[in-house]
Parts: sequence; C-alpha cells; structure tokens
Amino acid sequence: MKMNLYQDRANGMSLKNITVTDQFWKRYRNLVKKQMIPYQWSVMNDNANIKITKEREDNRIPSEKSHAVANFLIAAGRQKGNHYGYVFQDTDVYKWLEAVAYTLKYAPDEDLQEVADQLIDLIADTQETDGYLVTYFMIEAPERKFKRLKQSHELYSMGHYIEAGVAYYEVTGNTKALSIARRMADCIDENFGPEEGKIHGYDGHPEIELALAKLYEATNEKRYLDLAQYFIIQRGKDPQFFDRQIEADGKDRDIIAGMEAFPLSYYQADKPVFDQEAAEGHAVRVVYLCTGMAHVARLTHNKKVLAACRRLWDNIVRKRMYITGGIGSTPIGESFTYDYDLPNDTMYCETCASVAMAFFARRMLENEPKGEYADILEKELFNSTISGVSLDGEHFFYVNPLEVSIEASRRDPGKSHVMYERQNWFGCACCPPNLARLIASIDQYIYTLDDEKQTIYAHQFIANRAQFDNDISIEQSSHFPWEGHIKFTIENPQRKHFKFAVRIPYWSAHHYTLHHSGGEISPESKNGFIYFDIHQEQFEIELNLDMRVHEIQANNRVKHDLDKVAIQRGPIVYCMEEADNPAPLSLYRIPNKPEFKYTYKPDLLEGVGTIEVEAERLEADPLDGPLYRDYRTYEWKPAHIHFIPYYAWINRQPGEMQVWVRKQL
Amino acid sequence: MKMNLYQDRANGMSLKNITVTDQFWKRYRNLVKKQMIPYQWSVMNDNANIKITKEREDNRIPSEKSHAVANFLIAAGRQKGNHYGYVFQDTDVYKWLEAVAYTLKYAPDEDLQEVADQLIDLIADTQETDGYLVTYFMIEAPERKFKRLKQSHELYSMGHYIEAGVAYYEVTGNTKALSIARRMADCIDENFGPEEGKIHGYDGHPEIELALAKLYEATNEKRYLDLAQYFIIQRGKDPQFFDRQIEADGKDRDIIAGMEAFPLSYYQADKPVFDQEAAEGHAVRVVYLCTGMAHVARLTHNKKVLAACRRLWDNIVRKRMYITGGIGSTPIGESFTYDYDLPNDTMYCETCASVAMAFFARRMLENEPKGEYADILEKELFNSTISGVSLDGEHFFYVNPLEVSIEASRRDPGKSHVMYERQNWFGCACCPPNLARLIASIDQYIYTLDDEKQTIYAHQFIANRAQFDNDISIEQSSHFPWEGHIKFTIENPQRKHFKFAVRIPYWSAHHYTLHHSGGEISPESKNGFIYFDIHQEQFEIELNLDMRVHEIQANNRVKHDLDKVAIQRGPIVYCMEEADNPAPLSLYRIPNKPEFKYTYKPDLLEGVGTIEVEAERLEADPLDGPLYRDYRTYEWKPAHIHFIPYYAWINRQPGEMQVWVRKQL
Repeated sequence: MKMNLYQDRANGMSLKNITVTDQFWKRYRNLVKKQMIPYQWSVMNDNANIKITKEREDNRIPSEKSHAVANFLIAAGRQKGNHYGYVFQDTDVYKWLEAVAYTLKYAPDEDLQEVADQLIDLIADTQETDGYLVTYFMIEAPERKFKRLKQSHELYSMGHYIEAGVAYYEVTGNTKALSIARRMADCIDENFGPEEGKIHGYDGHPEIELALAKLYEATNEKRYLDLAQYFIIQRGKDPQFFDRQIEADGKDRDIIAGMEAFPLSYYQADKPVFDQEAAEGHAVRVVYLCTGMAHVARLTHNKKVLAACRRLWDNIVRKRMYITGGIGSTPIGESFTYDYDLPNDTMYCETCASVAMAFFARRMLENEPKGEYADILEKELFNSTISGVSLDGEHFFYVNPLEVSIEASRRDPGKSHVMYERQNWFGCACCPPNLARLIASIDQYIYTLDDEKQTIYAHQFIANRAQFDNDISIEQSSHFPWEGHIKFTIENPQRKHFKFAVRIPYWSAHHYTLHHSGGEISPESKNGFIYFDIHQEQFEIELNLDMRVHEIQANNRVKHDLDKVAIQRGPIVYCMEEADNPAPLSLYRIPNKPEFKYTYKPDLLEGVGTIEVEAERLEADPLDGPLYRDYRTYEWKPAHIHFIPYYAWINRQPGEMQVWVRKQL
Repeated sequence: MKMNLYQDRANGMSLKNITVTDQFWKRYRNLVKKQMIPYQWSVMNDNANIKITKEREDNRIPSEKSHAVANFLIAAGRQKGNHYGYVFQDTDVYKWLEAVAYTLKYAPDEDLQEVADQLIDLIADTQETDGYLVTYFMIEAPERKFKRLKQSHELYSMGHYIEAGVAYYEVTGNTKALSIARRMADCIDENFGPEEGKIHGYDGHPEIELALAKLYEATNEKRYLDLAQYFIIQRGKDPQFFDRQIEADGKDRDIIAGMEAFPLSYYQADKPVFDQEAAEGHAVRVVYLCTGMAHVARLTHNKKVLAACRRLWDNIVRKRMYITGGIGSTPIGESFTYDYDLPNDTMYCETCASVAMAFFARRMLENEPKGEYADILEKELFNSTISGVSLDGEHFFYVNPLEVSIEASRRDPGKSHVMYERQNWFGCACCPPNLARLIASIDQYIYTLDDEKQTIYAHQFIANRAQFDNDISIEQSSHFPWEGHIKFTIENPQRKHFKFAVRIPYWSAHHYTLHHSGGEISPESKNGFIYFDIHQEQFEIELNLDMRVHEIQANNRVKHDLDKVAIQRGPIVYCMEEADNPAPLSLYRIPNKPEFKYTYKPDLLEGVGTIEVEAERLEADPLDGPLYRDYRTYEWKPAHIHFIPYYAWINRQPGEMQVWVRKQL
C-alpha cells in the first residue's frame, strides 16, 4: 500500500522523492517556513500582539484570543481554566502541525521538530483512554460527547488530527503521532457504524472521511477504510438523524448559536450523496466531502461513489465557480446558491474552500487522468488560494472578493464580510493554517502515477527534481507562471519502458509548441495530456505554452459578468487595483481590439508579471450632477489600465479592486 | 389656524373642498374603499383565512395571526388573553382608521362609520386615565412604560393614533376621536420635555413629531407644537440616552430581539439632526423624522430645521433614491447605505418608505414652492408606492425590487427578502394600511396655497374639481398619466386677483406647449412652476406635456446601472416582465436609435399604457457550454421588448422582472 507522501497506488513505479526548485513556489514555501509557521504558533499560544477579526458581524464569535494551545493544556490537566473559542478550535493546532510536518521535509529544523514533538506529547496526554479528543467537550461538556453531531465538529476535529498525525509520522517517523491518530479512529469506529448499538450517523462537517482514507493508506487497517465508506454512504440516508439527536440533547442548547437556521442541505445531509445532483450548502463541507469520496472511490473501486464525485465536480466547475477558482456565492452559510449565480462583490469565496478544491482535484486526478482536474488545481494554486495570504505571510483573507470598494465594505452591511485588507487572524481561524499546509505540501500535487498503465503524469508546471523507482528521474525546469518555456529532462538509466504524460493546460490547448528528443514519432494527445513513450536512457521535452494575454468571457447566463472580460495570462487571473488606476474602476473599458503589453517586474510585489493596455474611461459624473437624466451617448476618454495578478492584490495601499472589466462590444 | 384637511397656512384663500375626478386615482380610491378597507379589517380581526408572510427570514417574527384588534379588547378588559404581535401592532389599526376617515369623505358609508365609531369607543375604553395607550405595555409590561424607548415604539404608536384621531375628527366631527388624541399628547407632554423630572429623550422611531404638528393644527394648542420641536431638537443631542435606559431596564430584556445589533445612526440618534449631513439608518425612520421636521419648520419658522430638511432631502433625492422613488438600499436594517449605492436586486425599497417620501415632499411644498418636491411626490405616487398593492387590492409588497428572478429569491439567502409575488399580509404589517391612507388622502397632495403671495399652486396632474374661498373654483381635467393634455378651467366670479402656479414636471421641462385665455401675456416661469396672474372671471389653461418615451440614464457613479437605461413616459417608470418577454431578461438590449411604440391597452392590467420596441438579444449560452471561454463578439438577434408600467408588475404569472435594460452604446 502507500509508501510515502506522494503516491498511493503505484508499487512498481512509485515516486520516491521530489524537490521543488521552482522560484515562485520556493518563495511561498519559505514564507510558510519562516513567517507563517512561527507567526501562527505565536498566535495560537496567544503570544502575538494582534487584533483578531470576526469573519462576520456577530457578537457571538469568540475573537478575544486564540487560546487554541491553552485548550489542550487545560484538557490535559496541566493548566486550570475554561475552554475558549469555537468547538473546533483544536483544528487550528492540527492544521499547523500538519503544515510543520511538510516543511520539515523541505526545510529540516531540529528546533521546530522539538516544538512539534512536544506538541504531540501534549496531544497524547490530552487524549482520553478510549481515544477521544475534543478539548471543548472534555473541558465543558463531557456528557454531550457525540450527542449533537450536527454542530459538534467532533469527527471533523479528530479528522484534522488524523491528517496531521499521518503526515508527521510519514515525514519524521514519530510513531506516537500515528498512534494518537489510530486511537482516535478506533474510538470513532467503536462508536459509529452500521452495527447495532453504534451511532448510525455522521458529523455535520465532513472531514473524517478523507482523514480515515489517509490513515488507511498509512496503516493498511481496513476498518478505517470501511468506516470512511460508511460515513459517505450513510450521509443523508436518514434525514431525521440530526433532529433526533438535538431533541434528545435539548433543543435550546445550541453549541454554535445560529446554526439551526441552516437547512439540512447546508450539511449535505438532506439526501444520500448519490442523489445530490448539485453542490448545495456550505462550500467547504461539500468539497471536503467530495475529497473524501474521491479518495475512498479509488481505494474501494466504488464506481457509484466516483460517479457522485464527477457529478458534483461538474456542477461546481461548470456552473458555480468564479474565474479565480473561488466558490461559495453567498456569505450566508458560506454557501453555494444556484447555477450561474456569481456576484463579484457579495460572494464568499472562502480561502478554505479553494484549498479544498485543490484537495478534491488531486484526488480526482488519482482516479482518472483528465486534464480538467489539473487545470482547476492549477487555477486554485495560482489564484484564490494564495490570494488568502499577504506577501509578508502574516495577513490573511477569509473571503476572496472579485470586486471591492472600501465604502461598500464599510457602509453596506451586506458586504461587511468583504475585507479590503488582509487581517491578522480570525475568530474562526480555519483559513491561515489550511493554506499553510497546502503550500507546504505542494510537492504532492505535481505528479500522479498509474501503475497498470506504467504512466507518470505531470500535472503542474512547478519546477522540480523527482526520483522514481527504477532509477528514473525527471527534472522540470521553468520560470512559470511568468514564462511558458517548460523543459523536462528524463533520466532512465535502466532503459525502462514507460509513458510520460504532460498536461497541456486549457488556456494553451490551441497554441503551444513541442520539441522532444524522441525523433519523428508524434506523441498521442488525449483528455488534456500528451503521452510520450519513453524507453531511451535520456529524453528531453521542451514545451512552449501560450503566454499571450487572454480576454475571458463568462457564460452569458452569469449576468454579473455580462459585457465584461477578465484578463488572464497562463493560469494567472489579473485584476485592476486603485493603487495603479484612478478610481472608480467601474468606469474603464477595454477596447474592441486591445493591445496588451506584458512586463515582468522583479521589484514589484516580490516579482510579478504586469499587463498594461491602452483603454478608455468615462469621466465620473459630477457629485452635484443629477442622479437620473435623459440618455446621452457616453464620451470615452483615452485611459491606461494597469493589471496585476489577482493573488497579489492589496499588498500596497487599500482601495478599489476589480477582476471583471467592461468591454467595448 | 388649520381649518380643514387640505391647507394649513392660508386663511384668506383656503381650499374648501376638492373632488378627485381622475380615472386613474378613482380606481385606486375605490379599491381602498371596496377592497383594502374591508379586507384589512377582517385581517386585523383574524377573520381572513390567509397565510401571513414574514417580511424577513426570522423565527422571531410574530406571524401566526394579526391579533391587532384583539390586543385592544384584552387591554380594555373586554377579553382575556395575552398581547400578540409586535410592540407596535396597534398602529395597524390606527392607520386603517385614518384611511377610513379619508374614504368617508369621498365615499360616505354609514355602516363603515358605525364600525369606526365603535372602534374609537374601544380605543377610548382602552386608554388609561393618564392618556397612555400602548396595548403591549398595558397587557404585558406596565412597569416598563417609557423605560426602553429605543425599542418600545410607544410614541410612534400613539403618534399614529393622533394622526388617525385628527383625521377622523376632521372628516366626521367625532370629538371623542380628537379627545383621545389630545389625552395621549398630554400624557406624552407630562412625561417628556426639557423640564426637570421629565424624560429628556425621544422615541427610537420618529413619528410623534409629525403627529403633534398635525394635532397642533387641529387644536391650536401650542404645547403640542413645542413638544414636537423639543423631540426634533433633543434627538441625538445625548447619544447615551438609549444606552442608559437599557442599562436601567436590563440589558438582556430586549423588546424586539436583534435590534441591539444596529448602530445609533439606525435611529438617527447618533448626533443632532442639525449635524446629520446624509440620510443614514432605517429609511422610514429618517423620512418620518424629516416629515415632522418640515412640518414643524413651517409652523415655527425655524430656519435651522428647514435647512436640515433641505440637506437630507437633497442627499436622499440626489444620491440615494431609485428611479422608481424607492429608498433603502439594504434589507439589513431596512436602511440607507451610502451615496450612489443602488443595487437593483438586493435593495429594500420598502413601500412605507416611499409613502413617507410622499409625506415629506408634501410638507416641503408647504414650506417652499419648488417643483422638485412635487416631481418626487409624483414619482412616488405613480411608481413605488402603488407598486406595493396588487390590482385586486388584497396582496401587498413590503419590498419593491427593480430586478427579480424567482430562483434568486428562492435560493440566494441574500435575496430571500425579495418576494416575487405580492403577499396576503405580513408579520410586520406596516405597509398595507400606510398605502391605504396615502391613496385615500390623495386629494391633500394636489394643491398648496400661499396666502401672503396670494398664490394657488397646482402640483399634481390628478383631475379634480376644487372650491376655494372667494368663490374661486378650479377644475382640472386630463387622462393623466396616459395622456399629457391637461386642462384647467378657473372660475373667479368675484374677479379676485391671485396667482395660479402650475408645475411643469422635470420630465417635460424642455418640451411642452401651453395655451391660455390670458391673451398675449406670457406667464412667468420659476423653480419648476409657471405663474399665471388671474383676475378674469374665467380663465382657461391648456397644457400639453411631453409624453414621448424617455430613455433614462443614471449618474455613472451608480455602477449597478452602467450601460443600462430605464424607460419612462410621463411620470411612469416601465419594466420588462417575463409574462411578456422570454427570459433571461438580462440578455436584451435596446438599440442605439430605438423607435418606441406606445399603446394604451384598456383591457390589460386594468388599463395601462404599454411600450414596445424592436430590440436585440443574445441567445442564452447552452447549459452544457463552458463557464468561461476566450472572448468572442456577441451575436445579437432581433428581439421585441414589451414594457408595462412598473407599478403594475406581477399581476399575472410570476417570473423575471427588470427595470434597467442594457443599452447599445
């Protein structure tokens, strides 16, 4: 079974090691290591002198402090006090630990490992003898364990530890880390399942499914896989499950105030996953569930589960996703709404939801090599995930808007969730460590292998050196995403026969050039990949992708984007910022036949490619002018538009921002 | 002082009587008399078998029944039980009574008057010996009277009775009706004011100010005017007033749950009215306050108060009003947001707020004859007030949107307040009777008089016969708003010398023709009025207004309306409805040089003028098409657009609706 971090299926041709050499991602991975990890640790220990922001206007959001580590100290009996924060506060610590695990692989650090080992000791001390560990319930309400799963996040919380424990074990060999995870899973297995006397239910927030699948691969313990599958299949089968629990636990004893306002579809619990035609409810819940389903589908060969994954993938990607990769069209329930409803200034687009889409895409790629999965993965990686962190690594977005005005955020309560500057931390701090663990594990998203077909798939243009079995090594070099020249150098000293498949991204599908050392043979193209038959000792591929600037148009059912275009180059979606363009940004338009000028600016925003175009704008009507008047033809004035990559917005002074720009029709 | 319903200032030339002969408004006034009054009475007595709709998604909204009359029976001791409904439930009854008073003038009805007289007896029985009357506090919390004015609506409630009592007295001569009002005002005067020992505060919801001004005019009791002025000047002077009351009353004892979330500006209580530069907070509160201020300014000649009215008027009308006359850009707090923020599909535009704008405009016209006030009054009367009631008189809108999709209302929780069909009744039923009293009193909005300048101003094109002092009579005949030919026939048997000023509406300012019997003299034009010097025994004026179709453009700072036009003819704003135009409506556009065809259709929607135009539309992109793609030029197909008056929308089958339509640039 699974042997290492990278690849879960192959045995004959597993990926043994990989080093990210990519400039773009090395900067982010250094940021995680040097800024985000120490910063987040100090916040979770309440040692950072910062103001914590509520992710929404709500007095019930705990936002005085993090207290996340203190909750463990109290639950372990090492300290006196009460639990503070959300019921799932523990997961901040777990996601941080998981990120630490990944960084220790590319940036070994004995001091950090010592801190993490001690944290694992603390977690082990905290864990109860039966394996249970959720500090809120241990400290505040031990009698309510597993009694109100709609709100309790208990399996969600332990799922996050399981992910962290598996990762830490795999990187460092710390067996205690794995053993905590096993004991948690055993506790859950003891309490949940189809057998009589167990709870025939599931957590209101999916997560345990994907965690158990990971644990199964680390331990080969089939019970964990069965349990993961049970949670998936049981979900929504008995829509009264939550209500019965709440009736028994006491209707007026909400664990998270206000959650009862949401319908069962918010929890993907209104009907079985096989009957869920569209992605409904809380976006992160949907995609965590899908990630677990895709993982379990591969491990169990359950075609019905895979079909459900494909259906939800298609609905999200083809009807409900912003061009940045953001998902979740409404802040109310951080949720999906309906097909083609993609408002640019009231959306949610939670950082965690984009991180989750990266997880889901990866698991789908492991099921089937379709370029679309890697395309969306790339869209997430280069846009609405990393837009969630500032270039300094210490400020974060929960919500990633496509159009911002300071006045709207301040004065329209319907947009009060849209921050126009990244924040230090949040009352619900799920996003910062989630993004840290994604960036720190980016090496796991570059390749997949298909043992049966003896194929190595290269999904992402992230420069790296990778060693596979049979002494095969692949070096990918590039200056992506700024340049489209990609070079693969394959060493195959044993002259093994295998296939190497390179994704041709959707944005370059019709314009790219390819050179390779395989002579006359022209490689096969299928489902977004180009397949090379390799048997030579050395093989070189040079790919030149289409790095022209694209004007992108939305399906005209998206009324918010009508008569507008978004600017994209390679995978990078661009935006206009007031820092470069005088407001109001709504008054610009891109001409019929624009000439875009691309410039890489090494000194701007840690090095970004910028795009400029000669365009037009209306002069803003005078403030003392009439509000309404008889129509008169607009008078367009020449204007210059300066675009920067979306992910890099608001790293200078605050102001307006917009992704979609009016287009001369 | 005030002698009758119509005019408050003139003595030498008061308006003695007026009969509305207008076809358009007679239909509405019959609807009030024959449908709305009996229907609302049965609802308030819980005899109508209807479903009551919550105006927002909130479990705390009382919506099982109205119980409005029962609350009086219980408070009067005639019945046992508890109070039900909002703390201001009494005001439904009062507004209904006020509407009844006005209908009894144009449609005398002994049976209805008998019912109303009995209601007044019940109210008199309910009133406490000190004059206090709010059924909620009398039944449920007598110890909390005047103790939590931020939420209690006590002066608001009694203010509504005072308005009703004055109107009923003036129409019917029922002195008990007036005496109840006086006793209420005396009770308030006893408890509030600058004197030591009294409460130095005011109601969280303005209303008492305008009511006391009316009572002063009916009674000539200066205390009432002084008290009205006190409430205006005291407001916001001591921003801690509400907080101190709440501290004393008990922080956790909210009368209306959730109200503490709103800032002081929601109540116009964050600073004195003289320092309020813009209309902030709850739209109805702002405009009720302004109405009272404008009334008091006239009666007291307080220029500072009048200046404050002008400032708020300008801000609302020039920066914060929808083209329909709707105000309130956000459902959160039913509030204003900021200048030029006028989203068409998430707005509030409460019917009551438009009704209040009509009140405010009338009071400003009584201060100064500026056409703009009458223009806005007209905009409200023909658009976003009457859009609040169905053509059958028994279904109502609380929220008046400018763009609707059924799917959005059903599936986007941020639009759940936008109903796509009018409702039977609301948990908070302020709007239906408010609209009834406006329509029933429309005769009070047609003329004002300036005694000093011996001028009669004709503001509205609502056909009527009016008798003034000195045997002067004016007959206005027209088929407005469908036709622009207006005829004034003035009889002046005593050959008095006076001025007659006719408003030239803003939409006709540059195109109208005028004929009159005054010979060569061309009348003076000033501030939106044309002034005729009348001394002849008979004088005729024929005015032909510009009834061409206008394409209206918003100030380009309103980003929601960029590249769009709204269609207006006369004062009527038009809309596209799915009943006439295949959806999605967003895909239509009006060509560069459109040719509009106007047709009056007597059998459609109780008789409406419709507008048609040959236009263009995009074919909707296929549902299995990509969500994003490289830009390609739109392919426009010929299409026909059919517009109906906005006020008449959704009187057929439900579907999409939009006011603003894309325009070929």
